[in-house]
This record gives sequence, C-alpha cells and structure tokens, in this order.
Amino acid sequence: MADQTTAPQGIAAHPDRLLPHDRELRRTVRYLLESVATERIVSPHGHVDPTILLENRAFSDPAELFISPDHYLTRILHSAGVPLEDLNAGRARGADPQDVWRLLCRHWHLLDGTATGYWLRCELFHVFGIDDARMDSFTEAMDVYDELVDLLRQPEFRPRELFSTFGIDVLATTDDPLDSLEVHAALAQDPTFHGRVLPTFRPDAYINIGDPQFIDRAAALVDAAGEPLTYAGYLRSLAARREHFVSHGAVSSDHGVRTACAEDLSHTEASALFDKGLQGRATVEETLRFEAGMTFRFAEMSLDDGLVMTLHPGVYRNHSESTFRTLGPDTGHDIPVSIEFTRSLRPLLSAYGTDPRLQLILFTIDETTFSRELAPLAGFYPSVYVGAPWWFLDEPDAMRRFREATTGTLGFGKTSGFIDDTRAFCSIPARHDAARRVDAGFLARLVAEHRISLPRAVEAMKHWVSGAPREAFRLEDH
Amino acid sequence: MADQTTAPQGIAAHPDRLLPHDRELRRTVRYLLESVATERIVSPHGHVDPTILLENRAFSDPAELFISPDHYLTRILHSAGVPLEDLNAGRARGADPQDVWRLLCRHWHLLDGTATGYWLRCELFHVFGIDDARMDSFTEAMDVYDELVDLLRQPEFRPRELFSTFGIDVLATTDDPLDSLEVHAALAQDPTFHGRVLPTFRPDAYINIGDPQFIDRAAALVDAAGEPLTYAGYLRSLAARREHFVSHGAVSSDHGVRTACAEDLSHTEASALFDKGLQGRATVEETLRFEAGMTFRFAEMSLDDGLVMTLHPGVYRNHSESTFRTLGPDTGHDIPVSIEFTRSLRPLLSAYGTDPRLQLILFTIDETTFSRELAPLAGFYPSVYVGAPWWFLDEPDAMRRFREATTGTLGFGKTSGFIDDTRAFCSIPARHDAARRVDAGFLARLVAEHRISLPRAVEAMKHWVSGAPREAFRLEDH
Amino acid sequence: MADQTTAPQGIAAHPDRLLPHDRELRRTVRYLLESVATERIVSPHGHVDPTILLENRAFSDPAELFISPDHYLTRILHSAGVPLEDLNAGRARGADPQDVWRLLCRHWHLLDGTATGYWLRCELFHVFGIDDARMDSFTEAMDVYDELVDLLRQPEFRPRELFSTFGIDVLATTDDPLDSLEVHAALAQDPTFHGRVLPTFRPDAYINIGDPQFIDRAAALVDAAGEPLTYAGYLRSLAARREHFVSHGAVSSDHGVRTACAEDLSHTEASALFDKGLQGRATVEETLRFEAGMTFRFAEMSLDDGLVMTLHPGVYRNHSESTFRTLGPDTGHDIPVSIEFTRSLRPLLSAYGTDPRLQLILFTIDETTFSRELAPLAGFYPSVYVGAPWWFLDEPDAMRRFREATTGTLGFGKTSGFIDDTRAFCSIPARHDAARRVDAGFLARLVAEHRISLPRAVEAMKHWVSGAPREAFRLEDH
Repeated sequence: MADQTTAPQGIAAHPDRLLPHDRELRRTVRYLLESVATERIVSPHGHVDPTILLENRAFSDPAELFISPDHYLTRILHSAGVPLEDLNAGRARGADPQDVWRLLCRHWHLLDGTATGYWLRCELFHVFGIDDARMDSFTEAMDVYDELVDLLRQPEFRPRELFSTFGIDVLATTDDPLDSLEVHAALAQDPTFHGRVLPTFRPDAYINIGDPQFIDRAAALVDAAGEPLTYAGYLRSLAARREHFVSHGAVSSDHGVRTACAEDLSHTEASALFDKGLQGRATVEETLRFEAGMTFRFAEMSLDDGLVMTLHPGVYRNHSESTFRTLGPDTGHDIPVSIEFTRSLRPLLSAYGTDPRLQLILFTIDETTFSRELAPLAGFYPSVYVGAPWWFLDEPDAMRRFREATTGTLGFGKTSGFIDDTRAFCSIPARHDAARRVDAGFLARLVAEHRISLPRAVEAMKHWVSGAPREAFRLEDH
Repeated sequence: MADQTTAPQGIAAHPDRLLPHDRELRRTVRYLLESVATERIVSPHGHVDPTILLENRAFSDPAELFISPDHYLTRILHSAGVPLEDLNAGRARGADPQDVWRLLCRHWHLLDGTATGYWLRCELFHVFGIDDARMDSFTEAMDVYDELVDLLRQPEFRPRELFSTFGIDVLATTDDPLDSLEVHAALAQDPTFHGRVLPTFRPDAYINIGDPQFIDRAAALVDAAGEPLTYAGYLRSLAARREHFVSHGAVSSDHGVRTACAEDLSHTEASALFDKGLQGRATVEETLRFEAGMTFRFAEMSLDDGLVMTLHPGVYRNHSESTFRTLGPDTGHDIPVSIEFTRSLRPLLSAYGTDPRLQLILFTIDETTFSRELAPLAGFYPSVYVGAPWWFLDEPDAMRRFREATTGTLGFGKTSGFIDDTRAFCSIPARHDAARRVDAGFLARLVAEHRISLPRAVEAMKHWVSGAPREAFRLEDH
Repeated sequence: MADQTTAPQGIAAHPDRLLPHDRELRRTVRYLLESVATERIVSPHGHVDPTILLENRAFSDPAELFISPDHYLTRILHSAGVPLEDLNAGRARGADPQDVWRLLCRHWHLLDGTATGYWLRCELFHVFGIDDARMDSFTEAMDVYDELVDLLRQPEFRPRELFSTFGIDVLATTDDPLDSLEVHAALAQDPTFHGRVLPTFRPDAYINIGDPQFIDRAAALVDAAGEPLTYAGYLRSLAARREHFVSHGAVSSDHGVRTACAEDLSHTEASALFDKGLQGRATVEETLRFEAGMTFRFAEMSLDDGLVMTLHPGVYRNHSESTFRTLGPDTGHDIPVSIEFTRSLRPLLSAYGTDPRLQLILFTIDETTFSRELAPLAGFYPSVYVGAPWWFLDEPDAMRRFREATTGTLGFGKTSGFIDDTRAFCSIPARHDAARRVDAGFLARLVAEHRISLPRAVEAMKHWVSGAPREAFRLEDH
C-alpha cells in the first residue's frame, strides 16, 4: 500500500506517454526507442546562454528557471489574463519569484494538452524526481516550489552536472556576430568540462537597414574588423566575423529573415540600399530587398567558410506594440505568417543548389509548405534540408504531421533532425525525448502497414536521432 | 424476429456513430459523452428565424423544412446537375414540395459521407423517430414524406416544443441593425416560453460603401437614430443600434468581412471614404479600406458596450453570377478563399489585444490558419478566441483536425465552443451532438496516449460543451 | 526449409501492404478490395509514349526502363548528391546502363518510405516476379539487373503483352496539338491490339506568348490549319486541331497552366497580346493574362467539341536554371507553388459553371486547396470535378488526406478517379493498386465509425475505381 501511494501518478512517469495506444504499434515503438536509448542528445540549434555552463552556478530559483524566461509558457498564462509583468517576463523584474510560482500553480490546468505543459511535467519528474501529478493540486504545487529551491542548491543540479546527466553531446548556442566568443573559448579550454558547446552566427540585427540602430550596428561591425563603413567593407567585416565563429567551432549561421527571398543584387544596387540604411531613409520594401540580397551573399560566404545556413523565415516579431514597448522582445507575441519558398529561393538555388559546398536548412512554422514546397525542394537539390518542425510546430501532433507530409517525397533523408531551439536548458531532454517518441510512432505505423521493414525502421530511427543532425549541420566535418 | 425487423437499421441509431472504432478508445469516448449528457445546448451563433418561435406554427411541409432553405444540402444536389429552381432554393418557389422531396430521394446517395447527410439522418431518427435506413430505398423514402407531413401536424413537433425537446438553453439569431427586435422582446416577455433567444448585431450590409444601396442603408440608419448623414452621425447611429441590441439581450456583434484587416483610419480619411460611398464612387480598394476601418471602430464600440465581436472573414459570396441573378444570395455558392490574420489584425491587437473589455472570436474556413495564426494569436492575446470550425469545416474529420491543430499551442481554453451557424432549426441537436462526439474522440486519444489524465479530459469535455461558449460569448455576464 | 527461403521476404508480396494495421479495419479493407478485384485499370491521364505499344519492341534495359526517364526516382538520388548525368536523366546519354543500375543499388535505401520506392518494389515483384527484398543487398541487387535483362527479352514482357497483363482498359497519352496522331490511328486500326489508347490535347507550348519560340509555334499551328497568322486564325487553328484529336478518340484537353485564372478577354485585347507575342515583346504579366484568356477560350471550345478540360496549375517548371540548361525539362525540379482557384475561376464558372456541356477537372499539388476551394467548388458547380491527388501528392498518406479533406463536403461523387500521370509504363498497376488500397482504407474507417454502411462503401469503392474516371473524363460518351 505504501508503495502504491508513493508510485508516481503523473504523466511524466508513464513509459508509454505520447505513444500510439494500439498494443501492437506500441511494441514496435518501444523497440525503436530502445534501439536509440543510448544515443546522446545532439542539439545543433538553440538559445541557451553558455555563461551558465562556464560559471556553473546553481540556478537561482524555480520561477526564474522554469517560468519567467520561457515565452512558450508565459504566453499561455497571459492569454488567460495573467499580466506578463506578474511573471517577470521580458524586462519585468518586480515580482516575487514565489508569487510567480503561485500564478503558475493557480493556472496549472491551462497547460494541459500543450507541449509546454508536457515538457514541464517531464522536467519535474525526470530531472528533479518530482511527480508531476502533485502540480495538479494547488497546495502540493506550492510545496513543490520549496522542494525545488532545496534541490537547486544541490551540486548535481548545477548546469554542468545537468549537461552531463542529460547526455548532451553537442549544444549550439545563438550569438551576436560581435560576440567575442570568449565564453565558448573558455569552455573549450576548460579541462574539467567535456561537452561540445558551439556558437552560431546570427546576423539579423546587422542587416536590417530599416532599423534606426542600423548605422550604429554597421559601424560597430566594420570597426571590429578595421574596415571602412562602405558596403564592401561591411561584407568583408561579416566574412571576418564568420571566420572568427568558425575558429571557435561554429558549424552554422542562422537567419531569422522576414521572407525566404534570396536575390543576387548588383553591387551598385546593394551599395545604394546600404547607404540609405546608413542615412535612416530605407523603406520597408528596400529593407526587404536588402535582406534578400544579404541572404544571397551569406550563401556565397558559406561556399567559402563552410558554415551551414539555416533559414527561419515567416515570423511577425513583436506583434503587440504595447507589450514590446513595455517588456521588450521575446515575450511571446511573435506570430507566424504564411511563407513562400519556391519562387523566393529560386535565384539562390539556381546558382548554388547543386554546389556541394552549400548546405541550407529551411525551417518553417507554416506547415502547408512541408508537402508543397520544402519536401519537393529538398528532394531534388543536394544542398537543401528540411528543418524539423519548430516553435509552434514542435508539439506531438504537429511533429507527426511533419513526417506524414514529407516522408513520401523525401524518404528518411534530407531532414535536419530535431531542433529544440530553446532557452529553457532543463527542457532539452524532455523535448528531444518527445521528438523521439513521435518519430518512433510514425515509423512503427509504416512498419505495421508493411511500407517498410522493421530493420529499416531501426536505421531510420537512428538516422533521425543522430545521423541527420550530424549530417545536416556538418558536425563531423569540424 | 418481429423485433429485429423493426429495430432501426440506419446510421443515426447507432450509439457509436462517429466514434473511433478502437474498443478501448470507444469506452473512454462513451464515458466522456456520458459526462456531458445532461448539458443543454448552447447555440451562441446561428441563423434561425425567431418568428417561428414566436408564432409557433406547425412547419408547413418536409421539403420546406429540410431541403429548400438548406444551402448545405441543395448545393450537393445541384453539383450533380439538379437545378436549384427544382428545389425551391433561394427565391424560387415554383416547384411542388412533393417533387422537391422526390429529387432528394432520387439523389439520396449523394449525401452519403457528407456532414449534411449525416445530420439529416440524425434529424429523421432522433427528432421524428424515422429510421434513416428507409431513405436508402426510393419507394420507402417517398413514404417518409407522407409520414413527416402527418408528424409535423402534431403539437409536439411545433417549434417551441422542439426547442424544449432539443434541450436548447440559449439560441442566438443574426439580425439586421435596423431590426426592431420586437420578436425577441415578445419572446422574452412571453411567460409561456422559457428559452433564451438573443439577437446578434450584424452590420455588414451597412458598411459596404461599394454597394449601390449603401446610400439608402446609411440614410435609413441615421434616420432611425435621428442623426445627420455624416460619418460622425453614422458612427453614433451604429453605436445607438448596438445599444438597442444590448438592451434586447444581445451578447455579440457578427462581422462577415471580406478580409480580417482592422485599421485605425483617421476621421478625415474615413469621412472621405464614407462620402465617396454616398456618392456611389467608392472603388473596390476603398471599400475594403473602409471595411478595415469599421472593424477597428466596431472593436472600439465593443470596449464601451461589451458586445463580443465575432469575425467571419474569407468567403467569396455569391460566386456564380448567373445563379445570384436568378435566385439571390445564400444559394450555395459562397466559396472560401485563403485568408490572413496575423498582419491584418495587428493594428487592432496592438491597440486593444490586452484590454479586458475586448473579446474577439476569429472564425475561419481556411484551416491552414488554425496552427499558423489563430492558435498563436489566441495563445497570447487575452482578447482573442479561436472560433470552432465553421461551415465547410464542421464535418467530423475537419473538426478533429481543428483540435489537432490548435490544442498543442492553446490547451483546452481559448476556443469558442461549437457554433452551429444554421438556418435549419431541426439540425441543431444533430450538429451539436456530432461536435461532442468528435471532441470526445480527440480527448480520448490524448488520454490513451498518456498526454492528459482522464479527470482532466472530463473537465475539458465539459468546458468545450458548456463553459467555452458561455465564456467566449459572455453569456453569463448579462 | 527450402520453401521458406524462396518465399518472398519483401514488401511487395505482402497482401496487407498499405493497409491500416488494425485487424477489424483490415478485414473490411480486404472485402472492399475484393469487390473491385476484377475491375480493369482506367488511366485517363498520363505520359506513356504510344509508340512503344505500336512497335511493341522489347524494352532495351532495366536502367532505361526503370530509372533514367523517371524523374520521381532520379530526383531522389540527385538530392543525395548523385549527378543526374550519371543516371542518363533528361538529355544525358553518356552513362553505361549497368552503371546507372549500380547507382540505384548503391542508394536503394534512399527510396525507402517514398511512393516511388514502393512502386518500384511492386513492379519488380508483381510484374517480373523478383522479390524486392533482394534489392536491399547490394550484390543481389546487381544480380537482379542481369535477370531483368533476360526477362525483358521474353515475349511476355513486351509492351502489348504487359498492357494486357496489367488489365488496362483505357490509357490516355498526352500529345502535342500538331501531332498527326498516326500512332493512335494505327493502334486503333490494328486488329491484333485490343486496348483503347487515347490522345490528349495539350496546348501549353502554343499559348506561351512570352516564349521566344512562340512565333514559330503559332506559325506552325496556323500553317497546319491553313489559317492566317492572326489571333482569329490562331483560335480557329486550335479548334481545328482539337477536332483532329476528337476524331482520334481524345476525350480531354490538358492544361499545365501557371495560374488557374480564366478571363473573358475582349477580342481586341487578346489580339493585341497575341501580336506582342509574335513580336517577342510580351512581358510576364502579359503572358499570364493571355494564358488566362486562353483558358477561357479553351473552355468555350469544350462547349462545342465536348473535350473534358483538365487544369494542372501551380507548378514552377524547371526551377534549377543550370540543370535545365544542361539536361532540359522533366528532370525533377518542377516545384509546387501555392495556388488560388476561387477568385481565379470565377469569370469562367459564372459564365459556364452550370452549363452541362462543360466538364472541368481541377488538379492541385497545393493540398490546402482541397478543403478550402476545390471541394466547395465541385460541391456546387455541376461542371467541376476535383482531380485526384497528383504528383507529389500521390503517395499513401497524402492520398488519405485528400479523401479526408474533400469527402465531408463532396460525398463520394465529383472526384476524378485515380490519375497515374506517369511516363513509367511498368509502374501503372502498382500506382493504381496503391490508390485502391488507400481509398479502401479510408472507406473502411467510415464504416467502422458508423458513418456509412458497408454496402454503400462497396458502391463508393466501385465508383472511385471505375465509375468516377469514366464519368469525369466522359469515357462512355465516345
């Protein structure tokens, strides 16, 4: 009886969570999951701050660890009327962490059915040993806070120890082009840390000629490289910063572009646009045109320096003007828009789509493009990979739809492997585990429908977990 | 043996209709359906004529009750070559009702597999006790006509008695802004009628400055309010009519807009567009711009009077010019177009998206927007709710896709609850029942996949059936 | 033991391949498949060269039969880095066929999970008796080449014998308007050949006024009809060529248009555009406008000559400029784009959508249009049929999604029946068989969910396999 009461009652502990409920399928899924059980986590794109690994300080408190910086989570509470300020989201800092936790507990049921809620349950149980069922009662959920405070003080819950416990093989961060990368360098040289933590070159802020801050950013960029403030100097400076990233282990550059357009602008046209940006006179159309030109130029830089290029278009950033003004970016109101790849990328792919030096991973949160554009493109061009479902699409049903929409055209190759894309360090294992479960469920169905053999499903499973991200991100080339 | 031959053979009588066929899932679905079995029907948006409830006359004949006014149904027969005139669709009145019924019987098989056919089968059986299997044979189907004629003469099949039998708690109608609402008032004051029948403010016809009738409509509107025929007078008149609706129990205004655009036009610009409309000189672009301006203004009126705002954009009305000329509107050729919400609504949501006075329900028949735009918007803005799948999307597979596309981002909150949107009074229970079955099937799968607990599924089920429409439409606030 | 080792181990031999794995569903699916087991193949749209049937020569070698001309297949190998030249794709002819086969064997695993791989496995086993499991080992796969070379020399593997073995009832080809159709005539008059091989009128190349070759094509067209090189003469010439096709058994014209626009251009406007085309001065916009005008005119010609009109819009042809330059068209880089039907077709459907002389089949590779535009259009207009899922969408999961997206609105009518659209003659049975399996799986689910009766599912199955293509393509009218 005692045993029964202490056995976990929550979702996270169930061995069959996220699995198709049919018994025969489940047997196959379990077999497939078993076949990759020892594979370590490859996280080639995300937003964890590397400083936490360098400094290896204990996480301060549960609210700051689980709630405030996670806009996946705060947006759900906000959608039900909880002010973001009360959650210490964005720039807000005024709320007591325990009150922040109390708000989570009070609205805990809002997370049911969501990917975010699922990950959080898994983090609590698999990382901290706390039965997530306890969160379903307000008083117990408040007790969990105190237990977490205690646990976070233990050495085994510091970032480096978790990095090791999580079984992370590679973790990529996302970094400003002017970042010195000294944190990455220090980690790489630290004999006591054995993880591979790679920077990623993310130049978005430096190519937006419509932004009033463009002149300052461009100036800082050319200054750092000792180049003149001309378009030519600007291009050389970007190339130089990329080299700096490559020398610190970077394998990819990441581009949160507004459209997927890539145009081979003439030097004259691009220079003129650049100058307009410096003068603060660039229109929206000119800004987008310059962006399209830079996507083409960055692809050409990739030919030289070998950085894999990841494109993340189609997000309307900072949709709520008032929220942005008060709390800043990354506060949960980046909203997808429909996106076009076929026509937009044609100039680039006509030029370099069959060039073995180029590797281009296309991410989308407009899932209509999976079967219509992305699988057809990646199923022809050697340079193109389809990015795993991302952001609003990294929940179980959407991840399944992604496989259903692409596999008939692509087979098991030419996708990127799972991308956690997260700032929430402790959610990494839960996210990767969820993706494995969904992918295994998809493959098990193909086996059960006699569309592939079981041995082939095992190979596909291993590829998706380990081979695909290593291939798509050239992790073994460096 | 005798019992067996009289046991219903049709689809409508089967207790497991629309349920996933897996036995274990079915058990859970039945349990969930049982948990809401006593919940009454909440129908916060539809097109039933309230006069039928006030007058409570017997329905005239089966053809007029089931066929002629139901463009869901007549369009299917028409697509196979049956002239709409022969069905008394739209303005047509020349056909003998029995001949209309004969055409339905002859083409009955065309309805198989459709939502409309399913509802009709359920109406026949659950409302009138007629085994729908009898419709599968032409001669028996013709006999059903005579039986229905007899039944419709019985007192228990008059509108008010059906309203009660159906278990309808709330029924909203859709009404012209200049409607006196005396029918609603009479119903509300009638001590012998206990239902709640609410008007809905639907101003579309009064904001279309490109319509030659705009001047007459605008004039009638300002006349009714004793205002001058200026843009300012026009705005005040609309506000006054809304107040009239509110005082008659209205909880929402409904907007069948062409786009989801909402722009804060200056008074000067809007006045100029209004004047162009009065002069019959507004272009298509100007008409859309004025519409976008009015969507913004109506949202502001909502802040004051508390009417929930429902938006139904993305329908190309009266697609077949020749059919429209002959038979008028609502004759089955309103066709969806792709639609955009993220950019279109940004000005409005930036201004009022976090204002607790605003409540905005976004409906779509472009299902690509569910995961891409609507769930992300409603999952951040407190003011935004995702409307249930509507029109071409209120059939079982599409309703399931809606839940699959939104729940991972939204959880179980922030959707509107089922909307029957129907003119066909007798189809209301069948439609709500179908939605319950599909929603229960979806929740049962989440339980079976260990994504939520069974108690949580029961809560979600109750919420979707009753809490969600009451919350989204503020039914308890009035 | 000996028996066991020779029993086929591959996918193709499994009787339940592509079937839902649930036992009860499978029983129903098998029953439905059995009900159409004797139905012959109706292939009303495809790209087989009729000369192979007239000449009836043995296929030259396995690489040329299975690999080089099949851009579905070569594109997958190419996406993994295999040069198209090494596969003799497009205009390339330099590679040794055995080396081409070797490349297939080496990359065989890339085809797993794809529709193309599945068809090829089925061809090997069901046409040539070769267990597809042997392809999973490189050495055995190379042996298969030699066996195939031997088999192809046998008389039973010549085209006419295969035509008969495959059970093909009707096979439509796709032909140039100036084709003499003497091959079709010779086949029709050949007393030793009993198949029905129909030409299809495909005028795309003759309406592209933006193509430098337009003047030569237009000139050749009017010359053939003895008409002057004017727009009026051009229209009469096209009508004359259509008559030529009709007199050779054609039932449809096929239009690989860029958009679905159909506009009733004035004679003056269209003439002016035509003249610009002759002068080589037509812009992209003018080219599209002329195309839209010709779609309208072709529909009017259909009213007169009764050819069913099939529209295949939304493909960006020859996406990779460099590949097109080197290897020519149909080399695997035609990529879908999003497409619009509702607004685009309105002028045409307003004019002739209810005219019984018109029959218009709308194909798409943008699957978002199935529920949003195509089912609503075909569910109202008698003239409109929804084309079966085509090209990138003819794989099992996409074919299932097509039925799920359209049936609730359309029922079981108003779709075209399966279209193989293939150049790969030997893949025809496998493709049709796969479509039958998927359709039966869909219907079995409706039965299991008590949405339709089993007898009705049998009727729907028969209709989809045989009645639908005969009706949509008017195969019985000729």
